[in-house]
Amino acid sequence: MRIGIDAMGGDFAPEVAVKGAIMALDDIASDTTIVLFGEPTILETLLNNEGCNSPRIEIVPTEDVIEMDEHAVKAFRQKSNSSIVVGFQHLATKKIDAFASAGSTGAMMVGAMQLRSEGAEIERPAIATVIPSITGASVVLLDLGLNVDCKPAVLHHYAKLGAEFATRELGVKRPRVALLNIGKEATKGNLQARSAYKIMQGAGEDGEYNFVGNIEASYLFTAEVADVVVCDGFVGNIILKLMEGLYSINRKCGTTNTFWEGMDYEVRGGSPILGIDAPVVIGHGRSTAKAICNMILTTERHAR
Amino acid sequence: MRIGIDAMGGDFAPEVAVKGAIMALDDIASDTTIVLFGEPTILETLLNNEGCNSPRIEIVPTEDVIEMDEHAVKAFRQKSNSSIVVGFQHLATKKIDAFASAGSTGAMMVGAMQLRSEGAEIERPAIATVIPSITGASVVLLDLGLNVDCKPAVLHHYAKLGAEFATRELGVKRPRVALLNIGKEATKGNLQARSAYKIMQGAGEDGEYNFVGNIEASYLFTAEVADVVVCDGFVGNIILKLMEGLYSINRKCGTTNTFWEGMDYEVRGGSPILGIDAPVVIGHGRSTAKAICNMILTTERHAR
Repeated sequence: MRIGIDAMGGDFAPEVAVKGAIMALDDIASDTTIVLFGEPTILETLLNNEGCNSPRIEIVPTEDVIEMDEHAVKAFRQKSNSSIVVGFQHLATKKIDAFASAGSTGAMMVGAMQLRSEGAEIERPAIATVIPSITGASVVLLDLGLNVDCKPAVLHHYAKLGAEFATRELGVKRPRVALLNIGKEATKGNLQARSAYKIMQGAGEDGEYNFVGNIEASYLFTAEVADVVVCDGFVGNIILKLMEGLYSINRKCGTTNTFWEGMDYEVRGGSPILGIDAPVVIGHGRSTAKAICNMILTTERHAR
Repeated sequence: MRIGIDAMGGDFAPEVAVKGAIMALDDIASDTTIVLFGEPTILETLLNNEGCNSPRIEIVPTEDVIEMDEHAVKAFRQKSNSSIVVGFQHLATKKIDAFASAGSTGAMMVGAMQLRSEGAEIERPAIATVIPSITGASVVLLDLGLNVDCKPAVLHHYAKLGAEFATRELGVKRPRVALLNIGKEATKGNLQARSAYKIMQGAGEDGEYNFVGNIEASYLFTAEVADVVVCDGFVGNIILKLMEGLYSINRKCGTTNTFWEGMDYEVRGGSPILGIDAPVVIGHGRSTAKAICNMILTTERHAR
C-alpha cells in the first residue's frame, strides 16, 4: 500500500511530517510505502539529517502550500502545484491508496468532495472521530464540522456512514446508533433533530441500522447508550473544540486520568472523512511528529 | 426580602429543600425570609425533625406536584394547586420577591413566560449560567436550553441580557460579549451564527454592548476572549450536559482540580432566567441540600 502524506501541512511542517513518517515505518506493514508531497530539497535535507534513507519513504516534488487561512476553493484551483492538490491528483489516479494532511481542512474537503461518485446515495461526506469512553469502548462521533445546517436526511446518512465505520474499523457488531439531542424523548430538540429522529426511527425499523434513539451529551463518553453518535457539523465542531479546550486546561493543571489521556490529539491520529470513494484523513493543525505518526497509522487502517 | 422555594421539586424533594433552607439561614440577609411551597404536614414534620422553628422559614400549603416528565403547559394549567403554580402566583402578586425550583424546568419556563411584560423588547427569555474559568474569572453562558431554533435577533437579545447580568451581578465593567461559533471569522458558522454575527456587530458599533466577535469553544473556559458567551439553546444545553457528564467522569476517576470543582452543580446554585420581570432561578433536578442552599443564595443575589 502507498500512503500519501502532505509534508507541508500543519503548524510544524515539514519537520514533523518527516520525523512522523520515519517513526511510522516501524509500525506500518512492511510492504507499505509513505509518499511525502512537498518541497523536495527541504524534505531530502530533513531525511538526511535524520539519517534516513529508507526506500519506503518516497518524495513527490511540489512547490506551493495552501495556507490555513486561505479561501479553500480558490486556493485549490489556483495552487495546482501545491502539496494537497498534487496529493489528491495522485489519489484520484490511484498512484497512492490513501492521503492524509494536517494542513488546510478546507482544502482537504474540497479535494475530498471531488472524489465523490456522481449520484452517490450519501449526499454529503462527514468528518468522523473515535472518542474514548470511561468503559474503554470507543464511540464514533460525526460530523465534526464539514456540514453545518444539515438537512435531517443528511443526519440519517451520517448514521449509515458511522455504523459502517464502527463495524469495519472498530469491529462493533450491530453498532448502536444515536442522535445527539437535548432530551431522550422523540419530541425533544430543535426542528432538525425532531425531523431527523423520525427518519432515523423509520430507517431503524427498516433494519438499515440499529437506531437506539436520542442521546444526551452527558452520556457521550460513557458508551452506555451508543457506539455511533450523529450530530450536525456545527454542534460536532463545538464539542470537538470544547474537548480540546478542556484537555488543555487539564494538562495545564497537571490533572489527568485514562479517559483524558485518550483525548490527547497526538495519540488519536486524525479524523477520517467518511462518505467519499477513497481513504482521506485529516490531522490536527498543531500536529507533532508523534501525531503525524499516528495519523499515518490511522490512514493505513482506514485504507485497509 | 421573601424568597419562595418550591419544596416539592427535584429528585430528592422535599427533604433536601427543607435541609437546604435551614442551611441557607446563616448565609442570607437577616431580614430575608424563605417561603417553602409544598405539602404542609410533611414540611412541618421535616422542620421539626431538624429541630428548626425559625420564624424566617414559612410554609405556603400546596397539594399537587408537577412531575419532571409531565407536559409542562398542560400540567401548569391543570395543577393549579401545585407548588410551582402557587409559587408563581405569589411572585406575580408580589407576596414573594423571587422564586426558585429544582423541579420541572418546563413548568418553570411556563411560569416565567407568563411574567413577561406585554411588548417587551426582549422576545424570548433565556436560562443563563455562570461557568468557572481557569483564570478564576467567571463567564456567563446563555441560553442553556430555553429557546432552540433561535432567530438570529434573539441571540442579539441574549447578548444584551448577558451583558446586563455580568455587569449587575458579577460586577464586570463593559463585559466582552462573544458569539459561540466554529471559527473566529465573520464568515464562519451556520446560517444562524453568520446572521447573528452581523446583527451583533452592528449593535456593538452602536454601543449597545461590547461585541468582541466569535468565540470558539476551546476558549470558553479561559475567560481570555469573553465575559459573556451567547448561543442557541440547543447548543447551550448540549454543552451543559456534556460538562455534567465530564464532571461525573472525573469524579468517578477521582480526578479533580480547582476548575472542575467550580463545575460542581452543588456549589453553582442554579441558573437564573433572564429577560423576565421577576427573579426566577432553576436548580438542578438532582439537587442535594447543599445545592438547594446555594440555589437560595443565588436567588437572593439575583433578586437584589
